[in-house]
Order: sequence, then structure tokens, then C-alpha cells
Amino acid sequence: MVLEVADIHVTDREGFIVAYRSAVEVLRTCPGCRSVRMTAGVESPEKFTLLVEWDSVEAHLENFRATDRFTRWRAAIGPFFAEPPVVEHFTDVD
Amino acid sequence: MVLEVADIHVTDREGFIVAYRSAVEVLRTCPGCRSVRMTAGVESPEKFTLLVEWDSVEAHLENFRATDRFTRWRAAIGPFFAEPPVVEHFTDVD
Repeated sequence: MVLEVADIHVTDREGFIVAYRSAVEVLRTCPGCRSVRMTAGVESPEKFTLLVEWDSVEAHLENFRATDRFTRWRAAIGPFFAEPPVVEHFTDVD
Repeated sequence: MVLEVADIHVTDREGFIVAYRSAVEVLRTCPGCRSVRMTAGVESPEKFTLLVEWDSVEAHLENFRATDRFTRWRAAIGPFFAEPPVVEHFTDVD
């Protein structure tokens, strides 16, 4: 299992949240996706951290990023990005 | 409940993990701390993301950062920092 951590900066906090809610099912129901957690900045209202657990990096890239699911996801939330999100994968340290 | 997200860059991945394991109980047992999850970068081996759930921002700052617990925690892991970690708080978006 890997954890995707996406550092997202937006131009419109409330608009982004509405768009996220409208689109999250396409991510949550993707094969290989185990959980989705969107969190909103306390100190930085324009910042969000998205945490997604995947079976593997390949599950994320092949089942989501390389498919129409990603196109639909980005079409919904992309217009609210202030800059391209920084997306990386992490593994748990016991 | 708030989620602390710490973006940590280290000089020695294995040394940092050993130090983290030696010190994590002081964090995990802190009043107001609900969970601790350390994750290690896949694409960036020198990066870690620490996720800590707290009752509130105040619980983190008053029960941990302002106390000897934090001094002990930083004494253990601080020598492995390549730069000061970026630490922010987030709240869940339903």
C-alpha cells in the first residue's frame, strides 16, 4: 500500500470544495483506491492536502492517471488550482 | 480534530527512521494526540511526511510544542533534518 500526498494551492477555497465533492466519487471508486481524505488548511486557507491510499503506485498511475477518470477529476477541480499540485507517494514507517 | 502535516527533509534516511522509532512514544502518548503516522518518500528518498491527529491546534501547541516532550523529540530527530520542517494544520473536508 502507498499513500499519495498531494499539496494543492487553490484560488477559491469554497469553489474548490464544491468541485471536489462533485468529483470525488470518480476517485473513490477507482480500482486500487483504498481511501480518500481531503483536508483544508487552518493557517493557509488556500492550501489543501489530499491523502489517497492506493494498492500501489502502479494502481494510481495505470487505473487513474492514465484513464478518463483522471480527465473528469481534473476537469472538475483543475480550474481552481493556483498552480500545478505537487503529488508524491509515501510508504508507512512502522 | 485537526491533522498536523509535517514535510520533513532529512540528510540520512535510515538514521532518521531509527531516531524516529526511538522517540515516537513521547509524541504518541502526549495528551490530545490521537494518532501518529510517519511515511517515507517513494520518489524522494530524503522526504518524509508526518501525519499527526490532534484534538485541536491548541492541544498540539500547548501539550507538546511548549513542553519538554517536544525538546526530547527534537533532540532525537532534529540532527537528521536537512532544513527546518514545514508544519501546518488541516481539517477534514467531508
